[in-house]
Amino acid sequence: MNPTACILVIGNEILSGRTQDVNVQYIARRLAEMGISLREVRIIPDIRPVIVNVVTETRAAYDHVFTTGGIGPTHDDITSSCVAEAFGVPWAPHPETFQLLEKHFAPGEFNAARQRMATLPVGATPIRNPVSIAPGFTMGNVHVMAGVPRIMRAMFEEIAPTLRCGRPVTSRSWHAFGLYEGGLAEKLEKIQDRHPDVDIGSYPFHDHDGHGGVALVSKGLDADEVAQVAQDIRQMIEKLGFTPIEGEPAHKA
Amino acid sequence: MNPTACILVIGNEILSGRTQDVNVQYIARRLAEMGISLREVRIIPDIRPVIVNVVTETRAAYDHVFTTGGIGPTHDDITSSCVAEAFGVPWAPHPETFQLLEKHFAPGEFNAARQRMATLPVGATPIRNPVSIAPGFTMGNVHVMAGVPRIMRAMFEEIAPTLRCGRPVTSRSWHAFGLYEGGLAEKLEKIQDRHPDVDIGSYPFHDHDGHGGVALVSKGLDADEVAQVAQDIRQMIEKLGFTPIEGEPAHKA
Repeated sequence: MNPTACILVIGNEILSGRTQDVNVQYIARRLAEMGISLREVRIIPDIRPVIVNVVTETRAAYDHVFTTGGIGPTHDDITSSCVAEAFGVPWAPHPETFQLLEKHFAPGEFNAARQRMATLPVGATPIRNPVSIAPGFTMGNVHVMAGVPRIMRAMFEEIAPTLRCGRPVTSRSWHAFGLYEGGLAEKLEKIQDRHPDVDIGSYPFHDHDGHGGVALVSKGLDADEVAQVAQDIRQMIEKLGFTPIEGEPAHKA
Repeated sequence: MNPTACILVIGNEILSGRTQDVNVQYIARRLAEMGISLREVRIIPDIRPVIVNVVTETRAAYDHVFTTGGIGPTHDDITSSCVAEAFGVPWAPHPETFQLLEKHFAPGEFNAARQRMATLPVGATPIRNPVSIAPGFTMGNVHVMAGVPRIMRAMFEEIAPTLRCGRPVTSRSWHAFGLYEGGLAEKLEKIQDRHPDVDIGSYPFHDHDGHGGVALVSKGLDADEVAQVAQDIRQMIEKLGFTPIEGEPAHKA
C-alpha cells in the first residue's frame, strides 16, 4: 500500500481569511506524482496546545506529516517549539544552523529573534532553505516548512528525494460541453461499480462565456485499468450524444 | 464569548491537487465579519466513514460546522447521506424539495440521480440555491453547501442572516518596505505582551518587482485596544527608521 500523508497548515492568517492558501495544492500534486496518498489537510491556528495535539495525533496516524507556516522569527512563530513539545524533546540551538545564520547576517544583526530560527527540536535534521537561509526541519516523520509559498516549494523539493514513495497515481480525464451530471450519473455509477479500485470523479465546470459541462476524472494505481475506465467514459459521453474532449477543461470552476 | 465554527471541505479533487479551494477564504472572511470564530478547517476525502466520523466529532466541538462539496447527483456525492448517518436519522426524499426539482426539470429528466439531490436527512431544513435549484441544507448545527464556489457563496448568504453571531473582529494593518521580521520581532513581542487580547500577526511580503517588507496585522474584539496596538506598531516602524503605510500591501505573497 502507498504511504499516507497529512498536511497541517498552521496560521491565523488562513483562518481569518487574510491569506489564500496555495501550498496545499502544490504539495497535493507533488505527493500524487510520488505515490504518496494525501488523506487529510488541517488548517489550525497559532495556538500552542492545538498545534501540539494535532501534531501528536497526526504523526501517529500517517506515514508523513507536512506542516507549513510558523517558523519565522516573530512571537507568533511557534511551530518549531510545538513540534519539540509534541515529540517530548528539548527545543535548543542547533549548532550548524546557528553558525550558518550567524555567517549570513551582518555583524550585530543576528539578534535573539533571528536566533530563534536556529533553534530546533533536539534530533531534528534541517531542511535547506535556498531562498532565505533559515531552514525548515524534519523531526521523525514530521516535515516542518515555511508558509511563504516560494520558500515552501524550495523546502519541499529539498526533501522530496528523501521521502519513501509509492506507486504514482495515473489520471485520465475527459470533458464535454453541454453535458450535465444529472444526465450521466446513473451510467457513470455503473462504470464505477465495475472498477471499484479506480476513483472516478465528476466535476461541473463553466467557462467565462457561460458555457458549461462536466469533467470526468479517473484516477488509480493500475494504469491499464484507468485507461479502460477512461475508454468506457469516452464511449458513454458519445452514446449520450455529446462530444468527448480529452483532458481537463480550461476553466475548472 | 463569540460562537465558534469549523469548515469541512469534502472532496477528493482538493486532496489530489486537481482543484484549488477558494471557499475557505470566502467563508473565513464572512465569519470574521459576523463575529464567528473559525477555529479549524479540515479537508477530507469522499470516504463514508471518514465523513461520518469527522462530522460527528466537529458538530460536538463547535457551534457551527460548514461543509462544502459532495451534494451533486453523482455516485461520489455522499455528503448528504453521511450527515444523515452522523445524526442517526434516515436519509429520505424531502417532499417540498422533490416537488421543486420535479417542476424545474423537463418531463422525464428528473431521473433517479437527480432525485438524490431531493433526498435529505430527515429533519433537515433546505438552503435555497438560486443558481442551480438543488438545495443545500442545515441539519442541527451543520450547514451543508455545494462545492462550486458561486453556488456555495449564494447558499452561505442565504443562511448568514440566520446564524447566531458574535462581536465582529476589528482589524488594523500597517506595512513597510525594506523592514524585515528579524529586525522588529523583539519590539513587536513587547507590544504583544502588553496586549494579550489582541492577535498581532507578522507577514513578510514581496511584490512583483522584488521589493519586499513586512505587514503587521492587529485583530481583536475591542476596537479601542486594536487601535492602540496599531498606533504602537506605527510608532515602532518609525523608530526603526522605516515608513509605515496603512493597510495591507498590494501583494501579500
